[in-house]
Parts: sequence; structure tokens; C-alpha cells
Amino acid sequence: FDTEPTAVRLYLLYNHWLLGVLLYFFILVNLLLAVVEQPALVYLPIWACMLVELCCLSVFSGRLVHYAKVIPRDKFWKDPKNICVLIILLLTLVDMIIYGALKATDNYAVRWSRVLRPLLLVNFTEGRQLRRAFRSIRNALPQILSVFLLFIFSILIFSLMALKLFGKRGLKTNDGRPYFTNFLEVVFDLYVLVTTANSPDIMMPAYNASSFFAVFFIIFILINTYIFMSVFLAVVYNNYKKYLKEEVRQLVRTKRHKMVRAFAILQERHEGWEEPVVSHTSWNQLVRLVQSDLSHAHRELLWSVADHHNQGFIGKLAFVQLADLLNIQVIAVKSRPHPLQRWSPALYLSTPSRWLCRAVKHRVFVMIYDVIILVNAVFIGLDEEDPLIGNSEWFFLSLYLLEILLKLYAVEPRAFYSRHNFWNWFDTIIIVSALVATIINTAMTSVGGYSSRQILDIVFTLRVLRLIRVVDSIKRFRVILNTLIKIGPTMLTFAQLIIVVYYIFAMVGMELFHGKLQFFDSESPGKSSCGNPALQDSSFAKMNYCKNNFNNVVSSFILLVELTVVNHGFTAVTHPSARIFFVLFHIIVVIIIINIFVAFVLEAFFVEYTLEKSLLITSLEKKIQELG
Amino acid sequence: FDTEPTAVRLYLLYNHWLLGVLLYFFILVNLLLAVVEQPALVYLPIWACMLVELCCLSVFSGRLVHYAKVIPRDKFWKDPKNICVLIILLLTLVDMIIYGALKATDNYAVRWSRVLRPLLLVNFTEGRQLRRAFRSIRNALPQILSVFLLFIFSILIFSLMALKLFGKRGLKTNDGRPYFTNFLEVVFDLYVLVTTANSPDIMMPAYNASSFFAVFFIIFILINTYIFMSVFLAVVYNNYKKYLKEEVRQLVRTKRHKMVRAFAILQERHEGWEEPVVSHTSWNQLVRLVQSDLSHAHRELLWSVADHHNQGFIGKLAFVQLADLLNIQVIAVKSRPHPLQRWSPALYLSTPSRWLCRAVKHRVFVMIYDVIILVNAVFIGLDEEDPLIGNSEWFFLSLYLLEILLKLYAVEPRAFYSRHNFWNWFDTIIIVSALVATIINTAMTSVGGYSSRQILDIVFTLRVLRLIRVVDSIKRFRVILNTLIKIGPTMLTFAQLIIVVYYIFAMVGMELFHGKLQFFDSESPGKSSCGNPALQDSSFAKMNYCKNNFNNVVSSFILLVELTVVNHGFTAVTHPSARIFFVLFHIIVVIIIINIFVAFVLEAFFVEYTLEKSLLITSLEKKIQELG
Repeated sequence: FDTEPTAVRLYLLYNHWLLGVLLYFFILVNLLLAVVEQPALVYLPIWACMLVELCCLSVFSGRLVHYAKVIPRDKFWKDPKNICVLIILLLTLVDMIIYGALKATDNYAVRWSRVLRPLLLVNFTEGRQLRRAFRSIRNALPQILSVFLLFIFSILIFSLMALKLFGKRGLKTNDGRPYFTNFLEVVFDLYVLVTTANSPDIMMPAYNASSFFAVFFIIFILINTYIFMSVFLAVVYNNYKKYLKEEVRQLVRTKRHKMVRAFAILQERHEGWEEPVVSHTSWNQLVRLVQSDLSHAHRELLWSVADHHNQGFIGKLAFVQLADLLNIQVIAVKSRPHPLQRWSPALYLSTPSRWLCRAVKHRVFVMIYDVIILVNAVFIGLDEEDPLIGNSEWFFLSLYLLEILLKLYAVEPRAFYSRHNFWNWFDTIIIVSALVATIINTAMTSVGGYSSRQILDIVFTLRVLRLIRVVDSIKRFRVILNTLIKIGPTMLTFAQLIIVVYYIFAMVGMELFHGKLQFFDSESPGKSSCGNPALQDSSFAKMNYCKNNFNNVVSSFILLVELTVVNHGFTAVTHPSARIFFVLFHIIVVIIIINIFVAFVLEAFFVEYTLEKSLLITSLEKKIQELG
Repeated sequence: FDTEPTAVRLYLLYNHWLLGVLLYFFILVNLLLAVVEQPALVYLPIWACMLVELCCLSVFSGRLVHYAKVIPRDKFWKDPKNICVLIILLLTLVDMIIYGALKATDNYAVRWSRVLRPLLLVNFTEGRQLRRAFRSIRNALPQILSVFLLFIFSILIFSLMALKLFGKRGLKTNDGRPYFTNFLEVVFDLYVLVTTANSPDIMMPAYNASSFFAVFFIIFILINTYIFMSVFLAVVYNNYKKYLKEEVRQLVRTKRHKMVRAFAILQERHEGWEEPVVSHTSWNQLVRLVQSDLSHAHRELLWSVADHHNQGFIGKLAFVQLADLLNIQVIAVKSRPHPLQRWSPALYLSTPSRWLCRAVKHRVFVMIYDVIILVNAVFIGLDEEDPLIGNSEWFFLSLYLLEILLKLYAVEPRAFYSRHNFWNWFDTIIIVSALVATIINTAMTSVGGYSSRQILDIVFTLRVLRLIRVVDSIKRFRVILNTLIKIGPTMLTFAQLIIVVYYIFAMVGMELFHGKLQFFDSESPGKSSCGNPALQDSSFAKMNYCKNNFNNVVSSFILLVELTVVNHGFTAVTHPSARIFFVLFHIIVVIIIINIFVAFVLEAFFVEYTLEKSLLITSLEKKIQELG
């Protein structure tokens, strides 16, 4: 690394949070372009889209150049993610030029580079978690592939058997097509059966012909749905855990290595001591530089943990632990006086006031409010057009507000809203928004004489959400909920992962299928066929599925979510070859990504059940206890 | 324990395998009575059913009395399973008397005690594995209950929100009913959505009204289907593992304890040795008594493992290991000469014969047969009415037969058919049955001029099953398959568990719902309504689901399997209150039992991936290597 002032300044600038936010903003803009690009949800002329995209591209290029200036040249070119970003940028530019030229001459053109956009999210340095998830998938692939091939082999064998058993019997499916006569159709139908999407339907013709044939389908489902899907989960879970361990080990090793290097810079000799040590002064300086927001008391606490024997200096081993020490969140229970106490001590410390504080903190207070919430739930369930019920809302709102105010009176506000008090934040936000929405709604009703549906929706949602709070007062639920809240942040990585995959599939799907179906809001001649003659009177149109299409990016995403949940026979809709797209989607999203998600939730709960505090935290706690 | 000769003889008689088989046979007969009892698949008069059941009851009582004579009286009455069996027998008797009396006077009567029958399978001593599975479920229940309550709470909250958001909008479902207006209906619909059975349908009316409402359903599915179902799996898996460990630990402790007691009986003093020891002679006697089929060489091997230092006696520690030693299956690679070699050594050991043996064991031989199998697969896929294809079957059959004969020539037959050679057994059984079935089929065609559909079905199935063999020659598949084959026996416990639960639900379902629906084979006026006016032109009848009913025990079982796979809206079929039955079934079977099954498969694969040989096996192997 270069240690010249300009280089350091450039490095600090690169790591400035504003630039990071800017980068994410432009990645988001770049991804959201799909909304206005053809096939568009909101139409925007091509030149405008191009302009915005060029703008994004220049920001990305600027960031890349900045990064290249910050780190040594050979390191930059060795890192595959930089190469990847560079190639994506170049390909996008080439695609834009081709597309622009073709469109200008009124030719058919495909914006194929849109598929590459989400890869930027993966490959920019900030997406470390996401890259780790992708690496983990890549590492699991060989083992998944073995199981997958065996699984496909099993489906092929069953298909062949089904063809031989049912093909010559002249059975008909429910919509009159011949049953199990074409090998590829059989394979596809049985693949869909694994997902259980067409579960009894596909079996009914054979089962109606003879009860014995049910055995075939039961064995098929047992082997493929239950056993193979579990094996997939086992393989994904096993690899996930193995890889996670490896990653954590490597991270710890890198951290140790860096800390040792830092120690080598800070070390000094101490008389009567063979090993080099770090003095309290330089340690203090360092910590103050790294975490300037740490209070003096907290810093002293950490030092006293590191320096067991009160020698005024620490050795290499204790120094290396510093990073771990800094990571532990010590909830500083500052017994700061309540603002009201400072303002008027006599009043706040008077007997009735003290009595009120004790009452608010009492168990009965919590129970009373649990009962109020339950009563509120009943009121919500009743018809809100009754004026009594409608006005009761004000009563409940004021009760909830009162609760928050009472708690704020009893507890120091900054402690009440400290970072780990999830439920206090939740309460306040929900109640205040409900209050604001209800006031707006009432104002609109009394002024304009009508109430907006959107605002009412928000009011109703907030009202119901308030009820969730009751869960927190039951201890056995709190453990589960806290685990779920704890894994929340990591789930964001998953959200990104799934958005990357969905985006790619949505782009491809939109290019392939857009305009094939149309959704008609009102009764119109096209409704019974979704605007596609091939679907005239099909069960797809009859079931009102027309809105499940790839006509714009929003409906594409919703359709992909539906496909994740149940991979329905949407496939047969336009053309048999479209099935390849849907099977591919199922393999990647359901078999791999959903299993990783499940593995992740499983691991989180296993860890929660067997969690034991690490040594370091325990030593810190001991010190706190010693200090009183 | 009583050690009188009569008592010992009684005890030995009790443990005789024939009595065990007899007991299982009568339990099976008792369970199968459901086939002939009303509502019957095959009609049998009531007195005949009663007679058979009485016969079963007397056998069970006899067994119980026998058991009571064998073990001490206080132990007998302390064991809950004996009490349980006794109560079941009494209740069954009472039920039979009431039922008989009511039927004799032509009153309506319910055979409620049939629900208790599968409990006999659980509670007779032989069902130890099954009891363990039930105990494991019972132990997991409290934790499952917490998650379940939270899950139900989440569904209730979402239902309330759905009611508020969609109820007043005047939306209609696809069959014209009002959408989300009744709270209980909403709860049920959303519960079914968790199982993904009604996935896009339930969402379509809201989604068609506005795309924003899709967000509600996506969040619902994310939380309830993905997160909560994973948490259920985590809880079940965690408890399963914890409980398994506990059971294994206890088993080992009991075994140790018993071995120590045996040691106390056999121990003797040895000069120059402080601790009591067991001599080689008494050890030999004991082993010969316990496992009389053990060869002398094997016994000597075990002794030399136990007696490291060749002292002629062993201490307590080495003696206690005996049970584990006996459990290890030493595959005695008896280099026994081939029978042909004994019969004509000159011929069998001649150069062409040796060359043939080498060729058969060569890799190329396996590959040639893999190619043959693949070619065969193509031929099976083609139309078998073409005479060329039809006759090719004989060619392939003879090739397969030749393979088996060649292998039998090269390998000693008893080694070839030893217990761990799964694939050799598989091959031989499939090929020989295929040969027999094909011959019967050809004979029938040439004699009667027609071929039986049943025999053809069997022929086709066997033909396709032959292809599975190809998997065994690919190494990466073999690992997975071997794990699956290894867990096969334990899966039998699951099969029993699921049969117990299915049987109970089938009995209840048959009493509640039998005769509500009818299945009509041909076109008949009742077909469009499944014989129930309430279902006239319903989508249930239109989808041809009429055969999914509780009219007899076979269709009940098949329906329950279908419900396990996808808990469809079968429920709305006759009466809304029937839904309780289906939700209960889903909770017990899908949430608990299927998760245990998945946990079990997961555990098997995790163990397989991290398997390390136990110390004892290693020490045995070392000894074998030492001995050469």
C-alpha cells in the first residue's frame, strides 16, 4: 500500500459512506430501468432510458477507476471481480450501441445485456456477503450435480415405466387429451409431480382406471419428492456448513495476521520483560483512532480485560484479541437520571411519581395491556361501519399512546430507544403512524365526505400490526421471535441473492414471452382467452390466471414468486418449448436457493439451541462483575 | 428373574421366533379386518368379522398372559405398555358387545374401537423401534407446540388483515363466491395457502384488483411457508437428534451394566493379578452359547483382539467390549474354491477358463453391459408392437442371463449371493422374474391368442427396473445409493409409524365421511356430482376427483397419501366442519411426521458425509492386518 498523503486521502475518500450509498443508488437506478424500458410498466422514450443508463455506466466506470488508483495495479488485475465488472460495462456499452443502431433503422432488437445488470450488484466490492453466498453455491454444485443426475435418472426410469404401463390403455386426461403417450410429456408431467403442483390431477386418470395404479404414484412421490428432495437439502446444508466454517476460519486467520502486523508497528520494549509489548498509551491512542465514539469508561473496561494483571502494558496475545473485544457490544446501562428528574427533581422523585414508575414496570401493567390488545383484536374483527366500533378506535389509540408515554415517564428515553429494544421501536412507529393515518382519514371524511381506500388500507394494516406486540409478553414465543429477528440482517443477503436470480429470469422471460398473454380488467371479448387464441376456453383462462404474465417487470417478478411457491403448469400455456425455461427456473431457485435458505434457517436455530457464550464474552462479563 | 427350569423354558418359548411371527400375523389380520368390515371393500357378514376379531383378541390376551408369567409381577404392572394393551383389549371387547347388541336390534352403531387397533402394533414388546419413534415425537411436542402456536398466531393476524383489506372490496372468487368476507373461511384459506395447495388461485382475485396486493401474499408465504416450516423442521430435527443421543447413551449404559453383571458371574482369580479376570475357556463357552453359528477362526480372532497381550485371560474392560465385538460384521472372505473347481479342477483351472474369469471381472465387461443396458432402454422406449422390437426382448433377456451365469462362473456362488451384495440379488431376482413373466406371456399369446394386461404390466415394469442397474457402475451415484439402501431398514419403522397414523385417520374418516361421495366408472347421471347433489357441477366433480373418498379402506389410504402430498381443498366438499379433520391430519402428518422423516434422511446423509470408523472396528481391522 502507498502511504503518501494523497494516496491515503484517495483511500479514505473511496471508503467514504456517501460514495458507497451513491454506488448502491446507481445500481438500483440501473436495475429499475427495467420498469421504463420496453416492455414497460411506465413508458419512457428510448433515448431517455439510454441517457440514464449511460449515466449509471459512467458512475460505475468512475468507481472502478477510483478503485484501480487506490490498490496496487497487479492486485487490481488479479481480482476476477474487477475483470468481471469491466467486461459487463463493455458488453453493456456494445449492446446499447447495437440496440440504438437497430432501433434507429427500425429493426428488431434485443437488449440482451440487461441480464448482466444484477451481476454488478454481486461484483462490486461492497457485495461481500452476496459474493460469499454465490461462492458457497458454486462449491456445492459438484455434489448437487451428482444427486441431480441420479434424480433425473429416477424420473426417466419412472417415465419409461409410466409410458409402458399407461400409454397403451387409451386413457384420457380430464381435458380430453391422451394420457401418458408421449415420452417427453410424461417426463415433464412427472417432474411437475415432484413439485406436487399437479398432484392428484396427474394421477386421477390412472387411479380411476384401477386402484392398483395409485401404488406407482405413491412410490414415485416417496422416492422423488420426499427422499430426493431431502437429499438435496442434506447436500446443500452440508456444503453450506462446511463452507461457512472454512470462510470463518479464513477470516479469523486474516484478522489475526493483520493484528500481528499492527502489533509489530506499535510494539516497544519494556524492561524486565523479554517479549515486546504495547503500552497503555499507544493502545489508548489506537482505540481512540479506530472507534472514536467509545466512551472513556468502556475503553478502560476493555483495557482492564486485556491487561489482566494491571501491568500497564500488554503482550502480543492480548493485543490480537483487541478486534474481538471491540466487536462485543457492551450495553452501557448508564444509570443516567431521567430528564424530568433533572428538570424538576422534587416532582419526579415524589412518592406518587415513584409509585407510578413502579406500577408501570410491574408485571400486572403488561398483563393489562395484553388484555387490552386482545379486546382490541375482537373490535377489529367486528364490522367497523358501526359508529360505536368506529369510535372505539380512538379509545384504543389513546390507550396505546398512554402506554408509550407512561413507559417514557418511567424509563430514561435514551435507554428506552436504545438499539436492542426492538419492540419499543416497533410500538412507537406503529402507533404514531396509525395516529397520523387515522387523523388524515378522519379529516378527509369530515371535509370531503369520503375516505380514501389507500389510507384506509394503511390504517387497517397498522391496526392489525399493533396486535403482534402481544407475542413479546409470552416468554416461549420471545425466544423464537428473537432468533428470527436476529437472522433478519443475514436474510437481506438472501433477498439480494434472490433478486439477482429473479432479475435474470425476469429479463429472459420478458424477452421470450412478453405480449403472449393479456390481462383484461373488465368483461371483454379477449377475457376468455387472455388475448391469445391458443388459450381460448383453456383452464388457464378460466381460472383467471391471465395476469400471470411477463408483460412488465412487476408482473414478471410476481409470477416468478408464484413459480417458486408452486411450479404450476403455466408452462403449457404458449408453447411446449417454454417448459425448458420453467424447469430451469425450478432447478435453480427451488432446488438450490430455497434449500440454502432452509439450511440457513435450520443452522440459525441449531446454533440458537446450543449457543454457549464464547470465552471472550465470558471474560468480559467476569470483569464487569468484578468491577461491580 | 426366576431361574427354575420351567420358568426358563417358558422364557425361551416366549422369545421363540415362531410366536413372534404368529403375533405379527394376528396383528396384521386384525388390522386387515377393516377391508371386510363395513364400509367394506369385500363384503363379509358381521358375525364372521366378529369371530375373526375374537380369535385375534384371544391370541393377544394369551401373549399378554404369557408375558406376565415370564417377568416378575411388579415389573409387569409398572410397565405402561402392558396396561395399555390390556385397556385396548378390554375396550375392544366392550365395543364389540355394544356393536353386536345394537346391530342385532337394528340400531345405528359405530365401531369406535377400531381406532385403537394400530396401537397394539405400537405397544406389544416387539415394536421397540416404533415405540422409540413415538417417544421421540412425544418429547418434541412441547417445543413444537410453541412454534405451532406462534404459527397459528401469525395466520390469525394475517387473516384479520386480509379480512380488513379485501373483505369490503366486493371481490369475487373464480366460482363467484364473495372473496375473503368470513373470518373462519379466510383462516382456512390462508392455512391451505401455507401448504401451497391453492397457491395462485387464492391470490388471483386480489392480484387482479391491484398488483400491490401481491405483496401481502408474498410476505405471507415468505413468513409462513418458508420461515415457519423451516423452523418446524429445525425443532423436530433438533429434538430428534437430542433424543437419539440420549437413547443411544442409555442403551450403551444398560449394556455395560449387564455385561458387568455377567462378568461378576464368570470372573475368577488369577495368581499375580489383583483384579478378577475371565479365562479363555469360559469366554469361549459363553460365545459359543450366545452365537453358535460363529466359526472357530472368527472366535479366535475376537479373542485375540480382546486379549491384546496374549495372557490367556481378560480383565473387566475387555470383557465388557464383547457385545460390541460380536456386533461387528466381519465379512469372512472365505477363499473357498469354486464348486466347479472341486468338480473338475483341470477344466476350471485351464487357461481359457482362467482367461474367462479374468475377462468377466474386468472393467470393460461392466462397460459393455452398461452400453447394452442403454441400448435396451432405447428399445424399450420404442413401440413394442413392431415384431423386430418385440423379439429383441428375448435377445436382451438372454444377454442378461448370460451375464449372471458368467459372473457365477467367475465368482464363488455363496460369495456372489452373500448378504451385502444387494445388486447381485437385485439383478437375479429381476431377470429371473422377467424371464418367467415373458415366457408366461408368450405362452398365453400363442395359445389363447391374447395377452393378459396384468402380466404385460409386470413384464414392462420388470423390463424398466432392469435399467436401474446401470447406476451401480457409476461411482459418484453408488455412494448416494448405498446410503439410501443403508437407511432402508430404518425406514420400515417409519412405514409402521405412518401406517399407525393413517389407520387411525382412515377409521375416523370412514366413520365420518363414507358414502358421501360415489365414484362412477362409466358415464352415468351421477358422474357430474359424484352422487352427491351438493357437488353438482362443482370443480371437484369436474376434475374427476370422485374416487378420492372414504368409501373403503383402500381408497381412504390412497386419499390420505394424496393429502400428505398436497392438502387440497377436498375439504370444502361436503361440509365446512369437515375441514377440522383435514387440518388436524395436516398438522400431525405433514408438520410432525414428514419432518421427522426429512430429519432422519438428513441425519443419515450427514453421518455418511462425516463417518469415521469407530475405535473398536479399527482395532479389529488392525488385528486382522497383523494376522495377515
